[in-house]
Parts: sequence; structure tokens; C-alpha cells
Amino acid sequence: MSFPDFTFSLLHQDGAARRGALTTPHGVVQTPAFMPVGTRGAVKAVTHRDLEDLGAEIILGNTYHLYLKPGDDLIARAGGLHAFIGWTRPILTDSGGYQIFSLAERRRITDEGAEFRSHLDGSRHLLTPERAADIQAQLGSDIAMVLDECIATPADRESARVAMERSVRWAARARRRFLELRDEPGSVPSVRATNPGQAQFGIIQGATHHGLRTESVQATREIDFEGYAIGGLSVGEPPEVMYDVVAHTAAQLPDRQARYLMGSGMPDDLIECVARGIDLFDCVLPTRNARNGQLLTRAGPMAIRNARYAEDPLPPDPECGCVTCRRFSRAYLRHLYMVGEMTAATLMTLHNLYFYLDTMWRIREAIMFSTFETLRLEFRRTFSRRPQH
Amino acid sequence: MSFPDFTFSLLHQDGAARRGALTTPHGVVQTPAFMPVGTRGAVKAVTHRDLEDLGAEIILGNTYHLYLKPGDDLIARAGGLHAFIGWTRPILTDSGGYQIFSLAERRRITDEGAEFRSHLDGSRHLLTPERAADIQAQLGSDIAMVLDECIATPADRESARVAMERSVRWAARARRRFLELRDEPGSVPSVRATNPGQAQFGIIQGATHHGLRTESVQATREIDFEGYAIGGLSVGEPPEVMYDVVAHTAAQLPDRQARYLMGSGMPDDLIECVARGIDLFDCVLPTRNARNGQLLTRAGPMAIRNARYAEDPLPPDPECGCVTCRRFSRAYLRHLYMVGEMTAATLMTLHNLYFYLDTMWRIREAIMFSTFETLRLEFRRTFSRRPQH
Repeated sequence: MSFPDFTFSLLHQDGAARRGALTTPHGVVQTPAFMPVGTRGAVKAVTHRDLEDLGAEIILGNTYHLYLKPGDDLIARAGGLHAFIGWTRPILTDSGGYQIFSLAERRRITDEGAEFRSHLDGSRHLLTPERAADIQAQLGSDIAMVLDECIATPADRESARVAMERSVRWAARARRRFLELRDEPGSVPSVRATNPGQAQFGIIQGATHHGLRTESVQATREIDFEGYAIGGLSVGEPPEVMYDVVAHTAAQLPDRQARYLMGSGMPDDLIECVARGIDLFDCVLPTRNARNGQLLTRAGPMAIRNARYAEDPLPPDPECGCVTCRRFSRAYLRHLYMVGEMTAATLMTLHNLYFYLDTMWRIREAIMFSTFETLRLEFRRTFSRRPQH
Repeated sequence: MSFPDFTFSLLHQDGAARRGALTTPHGVVQTPAFMPVGTRGAVKAVTHRDLEDLGAEIILGNTYHLYLKPGDDLIARAGGLHAFIGWTRPILTDSGGYQIFSLAERRRITDEGAEFRSHLDGSRHLLTPERAADIQAQLGSDIAMVLDECIATPADRESARVAMERSVRWAARARRRFLELRDEPGSVPSVRATNPGQAQFGIIQGATHHGLRTESVQATREIDFEGYAIGGLSVGEPPEVMYDVVAHTAAQLPDRQARYLMGSGMPDDLIECVARGIDLFDCVLPTRNARNGQLLTRAGPMAIRNARYAEDPLPPDPECGCVTCRRFSRAYLRHLYMVGEMTAATLMTLHNLYFYLDTMWRIREAIMFSTFETLRLEFRRTFSRRPQH
């Protein structure tokens, strides 16, 4: 936590909900924050300018994808990911572990690392904790994540323990490499670190087993990172189970460091997990669902292809202030979606991201005014995961 | 030309090049103007807001596509195309004839009209001159086009004559219907006209045969439209042949009415045809080529997939002021294009449309300062149709 370019300030608390400010080499992120997912150096279907207009203060890049194409060496030669993609605000990169688990072919996990074949061309790769740190040093993200082992759920306690313990060993190796790259520049000749102020977060594993989560927190805290993430959730378990694990885990994480819940979630997940002490979120839902024709609104999800919207002159959410809702009808969006116009994806992504980022804004404001519980209860009353009509 | 909502004012001439202002029920269009093509109610890969930022004063909608989906009845019930798509500036619609010629299946042309099967579902349709006027009345575009017969080129003189003469007969029927709809509202019970100030343009045919073009002009002028288009060009003939036909035809069109060259063209076509008296253009090139990875620049076309751009830090055109060139490198655009990110299409479309609209802006300015010939010669010197590098 002492590295000068990277600090987390706790501004206010309301119950377990935290209002903070994360200072990074590329600027400050007001937390709780949602990070739109910019998989391959772009948030799908929108431009950087759109994201800035929406008030996105940080985006996420996927190391697995960027490593395969265009390659971290090329990005490093361009001066790092910020320079390469022309995005000047903070970026967090994942380690690639989750994509190896979910996308890559014929993966084999050993203590050394994760061996896999590219889903693009079948080429063979080995991602070790050190290599994942190297790649992210070359990408020069503001926050790098350690390589962890992701497992299928539900996981029995023994498999979960094996993966958790391996993740802890990998975290220690990743941290060693990270510090070496940071404190002895040039010590790894093949690596061109492009962001000297990069921070590194550890990841807590242990599936849904409270005991394993506690062990993981202790061992990971001992390694000492600039922040901590909770991994291995939002992988199919019921929301209440996730909320329990988040509450149990977050409570044991250091107060003065940022806490990031990886890969969640639905809009109500954001509120419920802020209520349990989370500061940072990322999720493909608002962007992916938009491309599949699902709008997320205060009342719940809306499938725009539904025939009932064919002549509906209302905006997706009449109370929403986004550029899509201020100008376009459900009927027009449905038409664009049904004929396959790209603009459908763009306009619906703009709405969904606005909804997510606006929800975070309302959360931050509510915490500052100590009215967060009111907001949470209002959200529970009005938001339903069932499709709207 | 007397209809109050629709006027064309000639502001200045420089040689045959004309600087004008086209007043429509949805606002004024400074001419010479380029109309981005919004086929199905959206210009592909960009938003209306992007188009407004780019300074697009008018867009084109395709009657064939909108008639099939979502249908002109639905659009009329929504209040017309402007209301349905949320675009408040002028719109021109074509008649559908060209798409029947280029897209539809098993078309059969008789004196009655064009019988065809939808390229979407094989359903059978008959588009008559009257029906094309009805559909466009329902769409409520600011400028409607008459149905004309498009033929394959090169066309022998006899086929060209048959099609031209049929187009003239169709034009007379289209005009009769248009005036009936305009002057006796409600006279065609099945038609809900949504723009009482709609204008209608006739179309000059005759392929590359000067004599036929002259005959077509005389017969079409006799019918008397608010403006005139030159059709049947940009269909494969060499540029010089097109320029000759344009010069020959435009010179015979009324001075005080707008002249629209349909479906052209490359950037140099715009300049050369303005030099021959054209006021309005539309073309899918800037948008379609962007989606296929071709950037159009002052120097010429650039295929972004070329490996030479993989690490090129320059913007597509270092002298261009568009949002893409001010922020992004060729290397990044190439990466986005190669991995198939939609954003590649968006960013390259933004550039190409900026280039087209900026070229029109420079043309208008040059005409006002009577320096158009200098601009034309400069463009000829710097712009090449051959790919760059």
C-alpha cells in the first residue's frame, strides 16, 4: 500500500458499504466502481468517447486475449496498453486464468502453471504466475491480477482446497516477480514494463467453503498486495450463496485496501455486494446482454425482440436519462435488432452501461449521505430478475 | 418548385459548380451535399449523434428495405420515418427500384411495374410507380424518388431506350399519384401520408447514350418535378464516361432546381461531378468500405489489414481532424479489424464519413470563394484511387 502512485482512500462508510477513491497512475477512480469489460482493447460496440461520456473511470482488459492478439510484445513496443488503444484513464487487467479455464482448449494445470492451446489457432502456450506478471507488466495496466486456478462449481471441498492452495503458491511467485520487475527495472531482459506505478492484487479463492476462504485470505494477506479480489464466484452458485461468501470474505480483508469482486454481476448483485464491503466490480453482462437484445432497466431485464415491442413508442426505460432512452423507442430498437443492424448493439450497450454506471453513482451518493440501506431496499422492491413486460 | 416547404436557392456559381441551399420540411441542406446511406433506418455502425457531430445534414433511407422490414404501414403508424428512427433532419428515400434490380430474386418488369420476390423470405411483391409513391408518402421522407427501371450495363442502345421510355411513363404515373396524395389528402384511403411537405424528384435515364439522356431530360422535365436525379450511372462504366454523361445531362436540367447524382461515388467522383453541376450525392462507399477495412484518405484508399500497419503509430491520415485520426493509430485500428471488433467498423466509418463530409465542406467553401477549380486540381494531384504505399 505504500507505493506512491497507487493509494486507496476510504472516504466514508455506511454499514459495511464503503465510499472510497482509488488513485492510480492514470487517474482517480471513485468507488464503489463498475469496470466495463474491454476484452481485446475495446469495449464491444461502443467507443472510448462513449465510455468517457458515460463517466466510466476505469475499464478492464483481458490478458488472455491481448496476449494472443496482437501480443503483449507488440503492445509493449507501442508503449503499453493505454498508448496502444488510446485510452488515458485507468485500466485493470486480469491474469488470463479465467479465460484459460473458460475458453482455451486442452488445458492442463500443474504446479508450474497452466498449459493450454489457443482457441484461435490451436497453438500451444504455458502461462505461469511469472509469465502472467510479465505480460501484464508489458501491458502496463494500472492494476494487475495474479494468476489463480479457476475450478468448475459446485466444487467439493477437497478440489477447492487443492486449487486454493495452488493459487496461494502461485500468488507468492507472482508477487515475487512483480516486485522484481518493479524494483529492479531491466532485471528480466525479455520484459519491457510500461507502467512503473502498476499495482498488483491478490485473489482469494476457496469456492463456497467459508473455512477455505478464511485460509485463503490469511495466506494471501501474508504475501501483501496493493489490493485484494474475490475470485471463483458468479460461476453458477445461487446469489444468496455468493452474497454469504462475499460477506464472510470481505470482512476479513484489510480496511484500507480496495476489494474487487471478479466477474459479477446482475445489477442487484452490485448493490448487495457493496452492502457487504466490495469496492470494485466488472462484468460482461451489460455489454454482452445488450448484443443479445437484452436491456437492463430499473424494473428488470427486457428482451427487445419480444413482438409486444414492435410498435411500442416508449423508450426502453422512460425514467432513464441515457442517450438511447432520451431519443429512441422500443419499436425502433427492436427493428434494428431484428434486421441485424450493428447500431442495435451500440444503442443497447450504451443504455446498459449507463444503467450500471448510474447505479454505481447512486450507490456512491447514498453511501456519502448514509442512506445506502434505503437505496438497497428500494432496489430490491423495484428490480426483478424476471423479464419485464 | 412552388411548394412552400421545399425550395432550392442557388447562392453562387463557379463555372458549372453550384453552391446552393435546399430547404425542406425538416431543415436546410447546404449543397453540394453528400447523403450518408441509412439503409434500414440507421447508417451502419454509427449513431445519429455521430452523424450530427459529423455535420451530416441529410441522410438517405432505402424504400425497398424499409418496405420489407419493418414495413411502411408500421412506420406510418409511428408517425413516419423521422419519428420512427428519431432523426430530425432531412431524409431522402429512393424508390426501391435499384434494390429490386440488385438484391431481389426472380424479378419481372412489365409496364405495370416490378414484380419480385423478397431476398429475405421469398415472398412475392409488386412495386408499381403508384405503390412506390404511396410507400414513400407513408415513410414521409422530405424527398421521394420516382420508380425507374434500372438495367445492366453496358446496355445496347435499344435496351436502354426501352428502359428509359418505360421510366418516363412510370415517372408520369408516379407524379400523378404524388400530386393526388399531396393535394387531395385522404384520396387514397390505404395511404397515411406523414409529411405534407414532401417533394418528389424525377430520374433521368438513358445509360451512356447522350441522345437518350437528352430525350429523357425533355420528357421528364415536361412532367415537372421539384428536382431531378441522374440515374443509371456508377454501375461499372469508366469514370470518364460517367463524367461525360453527367456533364451532358446536368447542363440540360433546370438551373433553379436541385440535381442529384444517384449512387456515386469515389471521393474524386464527388469533385468531378460538382464541377459538372451536381448538387446532391449518396453512396455506400464510405460506410461499406469502412466495414471491409478500407479507409479513404486525401491520398487515396488504405487497406488497414495490410501487415505493414501492424505497428504503425500514425493515425490513418495524419492531416485529418476526425475523432478517429485524432486519437487512434493504424496499429490499433488494424488490431480491432483483425480480431473482428465491431468498434473497428465504427471508427473507420467515422473517419470515412468525415472525409466525405469534410470534402463537401471544402467544395462548398471553394465555390463561394470561386476557387473551386484550384481545389479540383489539388485533389487530382493528391488523391489516387490506387491503394496507398
